[in-house]
Amino acid sequence: MIEVDLALRDELLATLGDIVSTAPADLESARADRSGRVSESAPLAIVTPRSIDDVQATMRFAHEHGIPVVPRGAGTGLAGASIGGAGEIVLVTLAMNRILEINVDDELAVVEPGVINDDLNVALEPRGLWFAPDPASKAISTVGGNIATNAGGLLCAKYGVTRESVLGMKIVLADGRLMTLGHRTVKGVTGYDLTALLIGSEGTLGVIVEAIVKLRALPTGPKATIGAYFDSVEQAARASAAVTASRLRPAAMELISQSALQGIGEYLGLDLGPRGSYLLVQLDGAAAAIEADSAVAIIRSLGGHAEMTMDDAEGERLFAIRRSFHPAMSARGTVLIEDVAVPRSQLPAMFSAITVIEQKYGMVIPTVAHAGDGNLHPNFVFPGSEVPTEVWDAADELFETCLRLGGTLTGEHGVGILKRRWLRDELGQDQVDLQRELKRVFDPGNILNPGKIFYSSL
Amino acid sequence: MIEVDLALRDELLATLGDIVSTAPADLESARADRSGRVSESAPLAIVTPRSIDDVQATMRFAHEHGIPVVPRGAGTGLAGASIGGAGEIVLVTLAMNRILEINVDDELAVVEPGVINDDLNVALEPRGLWFAPDPASKAISTVGGNIATNAGGLLCAKYGVTRESVLGMKIVLADGRLMTLGHRTVKGVTGYDLTALLIGSEGTLGVIVEAIVKLRALPTGPKATIGAYFDSVEQAARASAAVTASRLRPAAMELISQSALQGIGEYLGLDLGPRGSYLLVQLDGAAAAIEADSAVAIIRSLGGHAEMTMDDAEGERLFAIRRSFHPAMSARGTVLIEDVAVPRSQLPAMFSAITVIEQKYGMVIPTVAHAGDGNLHPNFVFPGSEVPTEVWDAADELFETCLRLGGTLTGEHGVGILKRRWLRDELGQDQVDLQRELKRVFDPGNILNPGKIFYSSL
Repeated sequence: MIEVDLALRDELLATLGDIVSTAPADLESARADRSGRVSESAPLAIVTPRSIDDVQATMRFAHEHGIPVVPRGAGTGLAGASIGGAGEIVLVTLAMNRILEINVDDELAVVEPGVINDDLNVALEPRGLWFAPDPASKAISTVGGNIATNAGGLLCAKYGVTRESVLGMKIVLADGRLMTLGHRTVKGVTGYDLTALLIGSEGTLGVIVEAIVKLRALPTGPKATIGAYFDSVEQAARASAAVTASRLRPAAMELISQSALQGIGEYLGLDLGPRGSYLLVQLDGAAAAIEADSAVAIIRSLGGHAEMTMDDAEGERLFAIRRSFHPAMSARGTVLIEDVAVPRSQLPAMFSAITVIEQKYGMVIPTVAHAGDGNLHPNFVFPGSEVPTEVWDAADELFETCLRLGGTLTGEHGVGILKRRWLRDELGQDQVDLQRELKRVFDPGNILNPGKIFYSSL
Repeated sequence: MIEVDLALRDELLATLGDIVSTAPADLESARADRSGRVSESAPLAIVTPRSIDDVQATMRFAHEHGIPVVPRGAGTGLAGASIGGAGEIVLVTLAMNRILEINVDDELAVVEPGVINDDLNVALEPRGLWFAPDPASKAISTVGGNIATNAGGLLCAKYGVTRESVLGMKIVLADGRLMTLGHRTVKGVTGYDLTALLIGSEGTLGVIVEAIVKLRALPTGPKATIGAYFDSVEQAARASAAVTASRLRPAAMELISQSALQGIGEYLGLDLGPRGSYLLVQLDGAAAAIEADSAVAIIRSLGGHAEMTMDDAEGERLFAIRRSFHPAMSARGTVLIEDVAVPRSQLPAMFSAITVIEQKYGMVIPTVAHAGDGNLHPNFVFPGSEVPTEVWDAADELFETCLRLGGTLTGEHGVGILKRRWLRDELGQDQVDLQRELKRVFDPGNILNPGKIFYSSL
């Protein structure tokens, strides 16, 4: 049983007022994100700032008292980066949810960090503009969270990851000072690119309190959507690699393994499994129909049974199958979602390796992949809340294979708590040490999300 | 007269052998870049490594003896970042010029830093691929230099700056250790994005010794090129802003002020000046012709006299006018090239401000702009090698205006030596201090390009 410092909590309440909550339900909710990981005990308090001033006051208090602060958006993270534990303040950005500016001429928006991704796009649509980052969680995740994790999603091969959509930001430093990074211009090289350094820093370097995001013209015209069944997942992976190699640039290209498809089918009450693995391809832009014909030809030449539709509703229906994957897996048990990425050409090899690992450990590893950018999500599903040893062993082998194929252990979810054990394998000790020193420059007292990305102990 | 440490030079020669040159002509050549800035005296030695090992040996020597090292590619920089002075080793990457790998399926290349930008594209063209960064110096500048300065160019509005084309790199640290950053995958969020931090760091954090660059499919089909005269530069700026606001995305959009055009005309022996300011627009891709019609309509509606051609040779001839700008200015005297960037919608206001500054100081400031991304190059041309006081005063006003319009003092040239005096105006003291601390993590002895970006003294 961990003692809560009640005097400290009272002082926090007295200093920050009604933005502090110590309601047990609030404290409980911040112990988890969507990774399946739950902290060992509830945090000290939840602070829900309404303004930059509130964030600064919170950080000043934390700085003075040496209290760890966990920045958190909607809590949709998949690596445990935003979960709060004993003695920590969880700083939730959800009340800072104003769109401060939409500048149509300069194709940018200025937003508070708690703005929901989809809400921003709803505001932009009448202006013919669009914020491209498209994580599967976009209906509920925040722009600040997208930035803190450098979120990816389904549309990255064509439209880039979050990093490509952020021009600048305001951050509150560990000691409460406010700093403005980046610019409103599309070019700018004054000093080091701290905007890029903050993107994907998972709340360990500063609290993002405002962002200047780059907008794109909303693609117009009908989209072409292709759904194709393959006998084997390796075949489907080869077809997706061939589509990319042919210089087509689909807006989205998603690959669903047979076991993943079966799981989705059971969840949705559809009979999807027996037909094999599934490849979904969506093309947009002026030449969508013509490009889709080429993609279908490639897919068929590699053994795929393909159908194509130019109907947006029908296309959306096909993609809804893909978007049901995470809920389908969660309905079956506790899920450990992996997030490896390999060079696109290595997708077939990575899928073959997953098959070998499945056989070796006698387990099923349902997998979906953002095939256009070589990012795979192998899922381990198990009962109870403890990750079984053989799952860790299988995951270990999976990471080793991924690194051997020239890949990276996390394409878009981040390191958080779940991937820390493999950080050194990818970066090497020298780089881990260097990265920790950079964190120390921003946060000498180690109060910003300590224990995330890096283990707390040195 | 600065004393050269001859014993140290001998030890360097003995340690590194024939990659060291102390020939007076070599030493002299490293005192300048293309900025007009010349260091006060020649450097200690030029080292031209042939391998990563050579770079490591050089940095180990420098580290042991506390000798400053200035990394340098082709010396085409426009901010003085790669010029060497008394007691410094200039490390020239030009002999590390191998293309190590071209991977067509993964759309990436692995290159040594001294590869010339255009040479890479010559090697890529038969494969239908392309390295997009397109600085005006691309025929002679190196990929390593592009990365160290986050080079821009003419095609950034559509194809991004260098940052968008680099996946990873190997760097040699100040103490000679080798470190691998980034990855071969298009996604990857394992730890902080040190690749992005190194891009644009102007040789102050590490020596880039290898890079994994992202390639794009070479645009196919004919390009549409539009040339349009306007009575005033503000009118031309309004037209370019309107083209962008209409959601057209030209590959290039260049604006040439009347005095710049006049200078180019005199240089080329053509009568270009009397017709006003000039806007060049190039559109590529499947819909180039249709989009060009829309652009022409917008340009005419805003007072432009536009011609359009689908002939590539004719289009290239029009762009050759733009590319003659820098040589035309250099032929007239010493040139101080500025590099401000403003939000695109502020281009007309920035041009108006330049006109006001011209009148106030009784000088002509020939200006070209990458209008698609709001990046302007106002040029100050003067006799002799000393920048006259009134030029500094005019430049000061120009920067103040640019910052007031939401801009940045350097869009693509970098800070180097020339922009240091304005660094704090844009970043603020807190951020300058933080950036210096980050440098200290990489380079505690301050031997990597000291005095560049930041003043040497604290």
